Amino acid sequence: MSLDQYKTIGVIHSCFKEKFGIPRQPGLAPSTSAVLTLSPPFDTAESVRGLTEFTHIWVIYIFHANKDRLWRPTVRPPRLGGNRRVGVWASRSPLRPNPIGISAVRLSGIDTTGDRTRLFLEGGDFLDGTPVIDIKPYIRYADSIPEAASGYAHQPPPERPVFFTDQAEILCKEKEKKGIAGLKNLITQVLRCDPRPAYIDSEARRRFGVRLHDMDIHWETRGESIWVVDIVEWKQ
Amino acid sequence: MSLDQYKTIGVIHSCFKEKFGIPRQPGLAPSTSAVLTLSPPFDTAESVRGLTEFTHIWVIYIFHANKDRLWRPTVRPPRLGGNRRVGVWASRSPLRPNPIGISAVRLSGIDTTGDRTRLFLEGGDFLDGTPVIDIKPYIRYADSIPEAASGYAHQPPPERPVFFTDQAEILCKEKEKKGIAGLKNLITQVLRCDPRPAYIDSEARRRFGVRLHDMDIHWETRGESIWVVDIVEWKQ
Repeated sequence: MSLDQYKTIGVIHSCFKEKFGIPRQPGLAPSTSAVLTLSPPFDTAESVRGLTEFTHIWVIYIFHANKDRLWRPTVRPPRLGGNRRVGVWASRSPLRPNPIGISAVRLSGIDTTGDRTRLFLEGGDFLDGTPVIDIKPYIRYADSIPEAASGYAHQPPPERPVFFTDQAEILCKEKEKKGIAGLKNLITQVLRCDPRPAYIDSEARRRFGVRLHDMDIHWETRGESIWVVDIVEWKQ
Repeated sequence: MSLDQYKTIGVIHSCFKEKFGIPRQPGLAPSTSAVLTLSPPFDTAESVRGLTEFTHIWVIYIFHANKDRLWRPTVRPPRLGGNRRVGVWASRSPLRPNPIGISAVRLSGIDTTGDRTRLFLEGGDFLDGTPVIDIKPYIRYADSIPEAASGYAHQPPPERPVFFTDQAEILCKEKEKKGIAGLKNLITQVLRCDPRPAYIDSEARRRFGVRLHDMDIHWETRGESIWVVDIVEWKQ
């Protein structure tokens, strides 16, 4: 069959404006919120009828930032320290023959009152602008397999302690007052996953920036801890 | 992005030779086995390196038997008796804008010794000949959400008791001796889900046939029970 008939059914707007910093699986940063805006003709109110009965949905989407990069038969998952190769089929790497991702996320609400139907998602790992090709309700008895053994990814990654300098704390509170509720939680959940690439020499460069919403979050490592040191406005 | 670059990475061979009888979600008939044969250049031994550490995988595939049928904004799920409509996004119906399915299945083994790499799958709900576009390891901490509420599909469908007539019992044992191990379990698991379409008048027609492997399994309903009455060879 020809696959050129595949259509984008909607687009995700999320706080993650670049790949660096996005949690490597859904659910690791439950405070992340995203909005999936459905596109016509896939966005009628009747097409989502009954969906709010489900607390979670699958979002099936395109890794659009990786679409022009070549896949390789083996990859080095960050979970393995970046120095052990596994097959691409044993990984969730976005660099794969068909750049499709699947993420189970919490569905916190649906708005069908505006021009477009919008789904509110929590805990996602989506880059801003992600094109979506399917949504499915999460069916617990078929999708939840708590006894599954997941090899090198059996446990979630260890969490690092995250601290804010006095200056970062003040800036964060200001931002929260201006309308970005829960920003401190969001920053903490994103950074505790330690977004640094696995191959980096942990001593070589200690200051990093992660773009969240319209901010650049500056942070650095101090031993095992992560410190947020500054929050800077960022304009595209 | 143009989506015409999507490639079939492999094809599934399964006991289900037609849509009628396929369990409506994976896992409902754990005895079903299927073989996913990867296609070149996606089938090198290194591309599956490390995958056997995972007990379960996601198979992402095309509903190829439905590819030319039109989707509608609402569908009538069998679970709701076929008389209540929900939105297509609140259903796992194969009739959807992009005819993509996702199924979590048990990975019982991988054979890389032959011409082609083959993955052995259990509990699948795949039609024979299904084209596969992606495989991902099942990651328990991200994919398993036992607390999810799944609306009208929160519980697995009720199971009907399945019995074999003396004749069917004998024929089944003969088939098992000839090499189709576990056939009785397979038939029982497929039929206990009650494959009849929801809209059928349960009294109007009582005898049905389900094609499994090279057989036509004849069965009928007697009250709440399902009786296997005959097993007939079937040649394409």
